[in-house]
Amino acid sequence: MKINQNLTFNNSEGIFIGSQTNCKDCKIGIYGVPYDGTTSFRPGTRFGPSAIRNISNGIESFCPQLNLDLEDLKYVDLGSLDIPFGAPEKVINLVKQATILLMQKGIKPLLLGGEHSITEGAIAGIVDFHPELIILQLDAHADLRDEWLGSKHNHACVMRRCIEILPSKKIFQMGIRSGTSKEFKELKEKKRLISHQSGQVAKSLDKAMQPYLGMPIYLTLDLDWFDPSVMPGTGTPEPGGFLWQDFAAVIEVIKKHNLIAADIVELAPKLDHSEISSILAAKIARSLIMLLSLEK
Amino acid sequence: MKINQNLTFNNSEGIFIGSQTNCKDCKIGIYGVPYDGTTSFRPGTRFGPSAIRNISNGIESFCPQLNLDLEDLKYVDLGSLDIPFGAPEKVINLVKQATILLMQKGIKPLLLGGEHSITEGAIAGIVDFHPELIILQLDAHADLRDEWLGSKHNHACVMRRCIEILPSKKIFQMGIRSGTSKEFKELKEKKRLISHQSGQVAKSLDKAMQPYLGMPIYLTLDLDWFDPSVMPGTGTPEPGGFLWQDFAAVIEVIKKHNLIAADIVELAPKLDHSEISSILAAKIARSLIMLLSLEK
Amino acid sequence: MKINQNLTFNNSEGIFIGSQTNCKDCKIGIYGVPYDGTTSFRPGTRFGPSAIRNISNGIESFCPQLNLDLEDLKYVDLGSLDIPFGAPEKVINLVKQATILLMQKGIKPLLLGGEHSITEGAIAGIVDFHPELIILQLDAHADLRDEWLGSKHNHACVMRRCIEILPSKKIFQMGIRSGTSKEFKELKEKKRLISHQSGQVAKSLDKAMQPYLGMPIYLTLDLDWFDPSVMPGTGTPEPGGFLWQDFAAVIEVIKKHNLIAADIVELAPKLDHSEISSILAAKIARSLIMLLSLEK
Amino acid sequence: MKINQNLTFNNSEGIFIGSQTNCKDCKIGIYGVPYDGTTSFRPGTRFGPSAIRNISNGIESFCPQLNLDLEDLKYVDLGSLDIPFGAPEKVINLVKQATILLMQKGIKPLLLGGEHSITEGAIAGIVDFHPELIILQLDAHADLRDEWLGSKHNHACVMRRCIEILPSKKIFQMGIRSGTSKEFKELKEKKRLISHQSGQVAKSLDKAMQPYLGMPIYLTLDLDWFDPSVMPGTGTPEPGGFLWQDFAAVIEVIKKHNLIAADIVELAPKLDHSEISSILAAKIARSLIMLLSLEK
Amino acid sequence: MKINQNLTFNNSEGIFIGSQTNCKDCKIGIYGVPYDGTTSFRPGTRFGPSAIRNISNGIESFCPQLNLDLEDLKYVDLGSLDIPFGAPEKVINLVKQATILLMQKGIKPLLLGGEHSITEGAIAGIVDFHPELIILQLDAHADLRDEWLGSKHNHACVMRRCIEILPSKKIFQMGIRSGTSKEFKELKEKKRLISHQSGQVAKSLDKAMQPYLGMPIYLTLDLDWFDPSVMPGTGTPEPGGFLWQDFAAVIEVIKKHNLIAADIVELAPKLDHSEISSILAAKIARSLIMLLSLEK
Amino acid sequence: MKINQNLTFNNSEGIFIGSQTNCKDCKIGIYGVPYDGTTSFRPGTRFGPSAIRNISNGIESFCPQLNLDLEDLKYVDLGSLDIPFGAPEKVINLVKQATILLMQKGIKPLLLGGEHSITEGAIAGIVDFHPELIILQLDAHADLRDEWLGSKHNHACVMRRCIEILPSKKIFQMGIRSGTSKEFKELKEKKRLISHQSGQVAKSLDKAMQPYLGMPIYLTLDLDWFDPSVMPGTGTPEPGGFLWQDFAAVIEVIKKHNLIAADIVELAPKLDHSEISSILAAKIARSLIMLLSLEK
Repeated sequence: MKINQNLTFNNSEGIFIGSQTNCKDCKIGIYGVPYDGTTSFRPGTRFGPSAIRNISNGIESFCPQLNLDLEDLKYVDLGSLDIPFGAPEKVINLVKQATILLMQKGIKPLLLGGEHSITEGAIAGIVDFHPELIILQLDAHADLRDEWLGSKHNHACVMRRCIEILPSKKIFQMGIRSGTSKEFKELKEKKRLISHQSGQVAKSLDKAMQPYLGMPIYLTLDLDWFDPSVMPGTGTPEPGGFLWQDFAAVIEVIKKHNLIAADIVELAPKLDHSEISSILAAKIARSLIMLLSLEK
Repeated sequence: MKINQNLTFNNSEGIFIGSQTNCKDCKIGIYGVPYDGTTSFRPGTRFGPSAIRNISNGIESFCPQLNLDLEDLKYVDLGSLDIPFGAPEKVINLVKQATILLMQKGIKPLLLGGEHSITEGAIAGIVDFHPELIILQLDAHADLRDEWLGSKHNHACVMRRCIEILPSKKIFQMGIRSGTSKEFKELKEKKRLISHQSGQVAKSLDKAMQPYLGMPIYLTLDLDWFDPSVMPGTGTPEPGGFLWQDFAAVIEVIKKHNLIAADIVELAPKLDHSEISSILAAKIARSLIMLLSLEK
Repeated sequence: MKINQNLTFNNSEGIFIGSQTNCKDCKIGIYGVPYDGTTSFRPGTRFGPSAIRNISNGIESFCPQLNLDLEDLKYVDLGSLDIPFGAPEKVINLVKQATILLMQKGIKPLLLGGEHSITEGAIAGIVDFHPELIILQLDAHADLRDEWLGSKHNHACVMRRCIEILPSKKIFQMGIRSGTSKEFKELKEKKRLISHQSGQVAKSLDKAMQPYLGMPIYLTLDLDWFDPSVMPGTGTPEPGGFLWQDFAAVIEVIKKHNLIAADIVELAPKLDHSEISSILAAKIARSLIMLLSLEK
Repeated sequence: MKINQNLTFNNSEGIFIGSQTNCKDCKIGIYGVPYDGTTSFRPGTRFGPSAIRNISNGIESFCPQLNLDLEDLKYVDLGSLDIPFGAPEKVINLVKQATILLMQKGIKPLLLGGEHSITEGAIAGIVDFHPELIILQLDAHADLRDEWLGSKHNHACVMRRCIEILPSKKIFQMGIRSGTSKEFKELKEKKRLISHQSGQVAKSLDKAMQPYLGMPIYLTLDLDWFDPSVMPGTGTPEPGGFLWQDFAAVIEVIKKHNLIAADIVELAPKLDHSEISSILAAKIARSLIMLLSLEK
Repeated sequence: MKINQNLTFNNSEGIFIGSQTNCKDCKIGIYGVPYDGTTSFRPGTRFGPSAIRNISNGIESFCPQLNLDLEDLKYVDLGSLDIPFGAPEKVINLVKQATILLMQKGIKPLLLGGEHSITEGAIAGIVDFHPELIILQLDAHADLRDEWLGSKHNHACVMRRCIEILPSKKIFQMGIRSGTSKEFKELKEKKRLISHQSGQVAKSLDKAMQPYLGMPIYLTLDLDWFDPSVMPGTGTPEPGGFLWQDFAAVIEVIKKHNLIAADIVELAPKLDHSEISSILAAKIARSLIMLLSLEK
Repeated sequence: MKINQNLTFNNSEGIFIGSQTNCKDCKIGIYGVPYDGTTSFRPGTRFGPSAIRNISNGIESFCPQLNLDLEDLKYVDLGSLDIPFGAPEKVINLVKQATILLMQKGIKPLLLGGEHSITEGAIAGIVDFHPELIILQLDAHADLRDEWLGSKHNHACVMRRCIEILPSKKIFQMGIRSGTSKEFKELKEKKRLISHQSGQVAKSLDKAMQPYLGMPIYLTLDLDWFDPSVMPGTGTPEPGGFLWQDFAAVIEVIKKHNLIAADIVELAPKLDHSEISSILAAKIARSLIMLLSLEK
């Protein structure tokens, strides 16, 4: 699907289970960004979108937690963005354009990464539509560096960039357990860190986000938020992470809120031959489609 | 070992650690059913029996929890059933015959799967000997469909079939976290679902089964009951599962009860190169042999 | 794409590189048959079609040997057949229907397996259109058993079935290096075996097929024809096989002939983490599309 | 680096992140012992030291828990010991010599195994410097056999040997969940077993070690102490183990104590293609360097 | 099967396809030696015997090259030797005893390794029965070191030891392509090296062995003789090796000779997830059983 | 080793077997370029240098073909270049600087990639010292695109760039078997393609290069020149490639010529768990060190 000279969606790698391939009547739109150009440790997130789509054929359409069935929802899978080589700025800009395209059609975007740096593009595309946007970041890493190896646009700096773009400067960070001394100092000073312990998500997240009921929320889920035991297939696994049960608690909180867009990033499927990482990511995608379908 | 024209046990793939190869003085009999003919997602459970046997050479014979040693017990490993192609009915019938054969000799069967559909055969073989049989199912999936893709005998329908066969209609299901809307409705209405949260097994299971002390119990353990992190080597891993500690709690409950047969199904060992799935399954087999050895 | 009550093509797993998703102006039609229900050793060919499609994005569209470019050709990828459980007869019948559907539209079929037993369906669908059909089988195994484990329709009997169906009884077998004593006796007596040595393909195949120039040819390629070193990702690898250079020689011969349909079967991609098996299969698919595009 | 006729350190396989390659100003010294000669189940711990070093390039230098940065510490990585074939006694003696060498220079040793039997050498080297030494063993196995398969020096007997050497006979064992009946009897009688349940480490360990504040502590960490889900890459994984959060609790206790040496043993990296085992081991090594840097 | 105080065969890991489990009427006896204690690079040959047995269930019993069927032969699989820790001398001595045991019963031994050092034991056991024995070694490495890392009994010195034992000092070495300068000098001077090029085996081997028709031959096959592409699952793969076609040529020569014993060593199955290495080794074992069955 | 503000060699990942870590008396200098920023298919060549170094400990120092021993040669391993994110121009420029640095010291460079685009930097650094340089490219792909996805500096365009830089415009390409129609047309017109068939290397290469005896030669070896069976661990394997025997023929030709620099690129080691790809690459590195040591 060629949108304009630069923006092309490639759907040769299949679709997420139950998706339409056109936007008709859809309020939710999935697209992939198979980009891993700034990965510093173990690459391979470019295969994330196709792995999530492929494995999605093995999951049930019904979610007992949300009591919803994908078969009752309408959502489109546009395919994956065709992306160029070289500087990440171009990719981030394409993501911005794609996000704007969906927002203009009244479609809530769900991005499948690719590495975390793509989130900057999504936020940049959304702020004009939702200037009061609040970001909820689930991640093992703060990603708050201002610059890294001479570059400002990469997975290690992405949340710094997002904060700069965001008028509200409102961002919650949960699960951060690796970073520089400076990053941890900032997290503490700005009181952005909600919790960093598996099993304690429900209360602390609910409390922190209570004041923002009804406000537009963007969820960015770096899959290394999870413990390496349940998510080995990611570039930078960090011991001491979260479990599905914690994400189920996140779902409980978010379903009270106004989720308007989300991304799932940093799945590097070839690092996990058992495929449990891709299966987890696909189940999360199912949950997010359902959460995005809730009208607030 | 050829029993009759149809029933042949093949012991070319080794035996479970400490087993005899003949039934003399044995009260417990292991046999494998290397069948994965109706698997819908990722096949390979046909290699389950040989993987459990092979890896069993690496585990200790002593169990500190039960304070028993395999070296003090007598049990036979008959080998794996030779099974035909085509319709699963034939396989289920062979399992039924094999189970009857053991029951007639006063030997408690422990089946090593293979996919879950084999349980129907075991139950069918046992009901005549124990009409008051109660089934305890540990599983991520309800397996209660009446029919699937035009077939009535497969892993997705197996518990429906078992319920039909069972005079008592008494079945407890624990750990179910994936299924259709209809299945979850039934679980709720029939109050069959004991618990679905890791860490809460001991109390709820004990309470639910209290009224049935002394009754004959069949334990069917679909290994996807476990969390994918501890059991990646199964066809349909489902996030949010149980840990060894939970199974240890199950052991505590079962040891008060009259376990008369059991199966361990859905190990697909080649999906897990680290072999932790097979090691877990072998440790469970050790526990079940010990539990089956307890006279009630 | 639902054709009728039984025949549905599922295109959720992507398409072969450069394919259309509708039949318009197409003379060649790809479809997958993700069936491995009678596999006797190592299963997993159900993932063959999606692996070939997925990896096809990594190959060039130009073929220097045939001096053709996929970009200049028109071909449709219909997706993969939805298939039922149980007896293989149903699957074989669906393949027959799908093949007839394409033949009626004047589209030459290219099947992506799945296990070898599906070839029976394709031949059954084609014979009415081309009663004088000749089969060229590249395979490590004769597949000439009349019955196996009580079944007549499976990968070990498939060529026996095809011979029965085929009015001409004309079949060439190349590369057979494993089988029963009886099968090898028949191969010798019937003079069906063309060659069984890597490096000697060109001459012997050319000579054997010379008399049939212009006749309709069906190529069935069981990927275990290849040596395990170049094709580890197949259920029953057999040492002493063929190399790409041998297949290139096959291409040279076939391009003089009237190829009207073909299949590529027995790719079990998860057995080969390096993916060289899928890459080889995709390159073969590219060659076959081009060979099918040559008008005779 | 050749120390004397028998003792040679080989640094061809790289260094732990941030290490010096000479001892100047260093109070902490890392060295590897790539030995797996008595492994009884799955070998491969010989690759442990190089895997930890290699993967260490992917971890952050800052530790938020200890609020320390490797960049502020001085430590040497001497490389790995060159070791001979044959009887383990020679290897154990080399480890002893290497440990003495470091102790004489006032450098606290951190050994990277290799299998557990090497600990005997380290303890033997330290006792003359610290006769009041106390050992804290984190392990799934008691390793208290007196003899195994006719040998006294191997991974199954290592703690028996250490107890014999140690004047204080003071040893704490945590996490033991597999062993012989005799071993468990001894653990109970001697009250050496601190705890064996994930989630209960902090209190029980703190209490048990309280009386020994200021005493020299040796930590030997057999990585199979961890649960197989977070540490699949070890020779003898044992279900029901500990998580990173438990080790974080261990850190909290140890940082009050006088840690004077430590080892990390039984990493078999090639068993875990996802590399989460090596990443966990490297993060532990980072923690231990920091703990060894604390002056008491 | 316990033979005497030291010699025990363990058959818990299954049997080679078609084997008996007792010696009755057998002229050929298989046994495993799961030893990898002196491996210098990548260990894991201890799993060789079980891998060969396990995978043997997937191969045909008929061999078209030799026109023989395993079903027509009688051979026993005794299981694998129980072996101690520590110095390799003990293992080599056990192999010697086991070999003598078979020779005394008139049974030709086929050893499944384990590493190459076990060959010394087999030769030591046979020389008294066949003082005029000739060894044919297929290998990538000369294994002619006199001593290595202070030891005389290991895989790098094994052929030196065999030559010392052998009264005839008659040994042919084929495929050697890696070693020390000194080893290659000796090979050249002694004219022991037959050929080292794939595709040239038949003639040179036939010519070299022509003078020894009727003499007792021992074939020792280090699987790294093969090219890494067909045999990745070995500890020390060496590029530039041989293919199945070359081994087929070896078969053609050996079948004229009086093969009285053989070994297949250095299979490290876990290094090759595709299992093509084990499949090749099993096919070779089938060939050797057949060659050993030929009466001369 | 920090050379200047931008040029830093990191030697934390070990050294090639037998290397010095300083330049003293060395005529040959190895350095790694762990760059895979423009990889279009499967990334991971960033791990190439460390894999080659790590596995090099398992190979013999003696080469029977060249009759040389690494122990008799002097060469330095400088470590791997620290490289920035973003545009590949920076990396290429660093490679240029590093190459110039070595040339100025009279040291012949051997680069370990990393992807192929780094060759441009090496050529750019050498041309001033050797304006009459001739390039010999062994590769499966022509890499002659002028631009790709909007970029001029990447692996698909690297030889186009090299030709532009090279005053002599003299380049030989061997093994090219994949590319665009336009690339093949150019190869044919310019007569740059020497041979594309395994087994025919010796004659054609010798003849083609005969006129250039004594001229400075740069060998760039894209490892996908090899057949996928012997080199599965590369990003874009292409069926129909070359074997070790062919590279041995290349060695025979090059040893008559004046090799002044070389690179080994496109090893993606994590794609090949058997490690035969890394072993092959290390053996090639050994050969190239020896060839670079020959004075002409």
